[in-house]
Amino acid sequence: MSPMLDARTAEYRAYIDRYLADFYRRFHTEPQKPLFEAVEYSLLAPGKRLRPVFAFEFCRLCCGDWKKAAPFAGAVEMIHNYSLIHDDLPSMDNDDFRRGRPTNHKVYGEGMAILAGDALLTDAFAMAASSDLSGKDMATAIGVLAENAGSLGMVGGQVLDIMSEQRQLTEQEVLDIQSRKTGALINAACVLGVIAGGGSEKQIEAAAGFAALLGLALQIRDDMLDVIGTQEEMGKGVGTDAAKNTFVRLYGLEKCEELVNKYTDLALKKLDVFEDTQYLKELALSLTTRRI
Amino acid sequence: MSPMLDARTAEYRAYIDRYLADFYRRFHTEPQKPLFEAVEYSLLAPGKRLRPVFAFEFCRLCCGDWKKAAPFAGAVEMIHNYSLIHDDLPSMDNDDFRRGRPTNHKVYGEGMAILAGDALLTDAFAMAASSDLSGKDMATAIGVLAENAGSLGMVGGQVLDIMSEQRQLTEQEVLDIQSRKTGALINAACVLGVIAGGGSEKQIEAAAGFAALLGLALQIRDDMLDVIGTQEEMGKGVGTDAAKNTFVRLYGLEKCEELVNKYTDLALKKLDVFEDTQYLKELALSLTTRRI
Repeated sequence: MSPMLDARTAEYRAYIDRYLADFYRRFHTEPQKPLFEAVEYSLLAPGKRLRPVFAFEFCRLCCGDWKKAAPFAGAVEMIHNYSLIHDDLPSMDNDDFRRGRPTNHKVYGEGMAILAGDALLTDAFAMAASSDLSGKDMATAIGVLAENAGSLGMVGGQVLDIMSEQRQLTEQEVLDIQSRKTGALINAACVLGVIAGGGSEKQIEAAAGFAALLGLALQIRDDMLDVIGTQEEMGKGVGTDAAKNTFVRLYGLEKCEELVNKYTDLALKKLDVFEDTQYLKELALSLTTRRI
Repeated sequence: MSPMLDARTAEYRAYIDRYLADFYRRFHTEPQKPLFEAVEYSLLAPGKRLRPVFAFEFCRLCCGDWKKAAPFAGAVEMIHNYSLIHDDLPSMDNDDFRRGRPTNHKVYGEGMAILAGDALLTDAFAMAASSDLSGKDMATAIGVLAENAGSLGMVGGQVLDIMSEQRQLTEQEVLDIQSRKTGALINAACVLGVIAGGGSEKQIEAAAGFAALLGLALQIRDDMLDVIGTQEEMGKGVGTDAAKNTFVRLYGLEKCEELVNKYTDLALKKLDVFEDTQYLKELALSLTTRRI
């Protein structure tokens, strides 16, 4: 990684870590302490904070003042974390470990894990509503967040994924599931960054295009890592997706490598409507593990 | 019930039934059909639609045009329904029946029931954001919805309820749990009705006061019905709350009857800042089963 990539990413991560911790610290005088313990166990665990980083950077590209995106960066991260908690439940993927630690329900029990997820999802909208966006922009932003996370977006993708476990999918079906299941929240992060920064319609479209293509590249890369990774490197069970309809199963490893490069290149082209995109380009390339 | 009470309540209910059905009907061309089936099984089941009725009526009291409250009436009802689905899960209350029908997870399985709840909760915010409220009002409204439903409100109340199962609570603790667990969403419905109708700060406060007091009366009444009801009348298991910290356990039946009347009277006094409150008074009294 370049010094700029390292420094700015670290700054964004430190800021969102503190922002999220502060949000829930205010509630520590409340009596429902086990809820906040369960919420913070997942939300404040060390993570890449990829979605907040995208939100901050797109906001910076639009107005310079990246901190304006914090309520949306935090909201998207909270929604991401709720989805991990619920996805790990016994009646869903039944995972015991996540990022090398026991999953939320293994520590706090299923009931509390469900409630911790429900709390994170709901509180995310309270956080988003605390932004000082004016007028129509607030409604647009809440709509972007809810539609990408809800039954047409991430939740819909999870359902399609469950439905697909018993059969071989077409390429179009795998793309559709991916774009909802993981692409939708990345889309929300990028678009909300632009909205928070007061960007134009054209910039919103460019951010959405970038997110769709990069999200695809990242998902293909994830599928590849699931096959070639080791439990130590990934911090979670490896090969659990082997029975699922992954891009590796569809294309094989070699073709996947090509596609990752192709979609990353296409994503970077979408950034032409912005200036000063060096950081975002380096970030995208580092995530898809190509060197510049 | 008076003819006015019957007619207006029926009009509100018919409107919200259609509004909710239309919202999800748009998604019927989507491939994640099992999700919408599970969502609609619960959301479109016959119900009192009490929260939408309050939202519509407070909106009418403020501006006459009650339909303006529809996105919030619908959102609160969706959040109410998600909470029922998740509360019924085996790892929570483990209920097999609700309103005389098998609970969501008994029909669709636990995983899909969790996702149906997640979808309803998230989609509720998309629906609320579709309101044409302007500027600061939209942020306020989303905040009211999220804070009443989230970790300080309904979810927090559910956690406190679970925490309390092993011990006898004080009166203040029972009140705190009730005000969050069931009071918060009634509060959201009433306050959002005022906001949707462009009401004043004073009217928002009055609606919140009315909701808190009537919510309390309704919860005490519910606790009483749980003891004196029969399975046929209630359509769900009776006496399942017997081990919990209910108002009946705290006060006994006779004192509960008194309290229901007292809190209902106090709630009605809050309505003085509105005109034309006959319907709302009749509604409140009919719900707490007193005759005028």
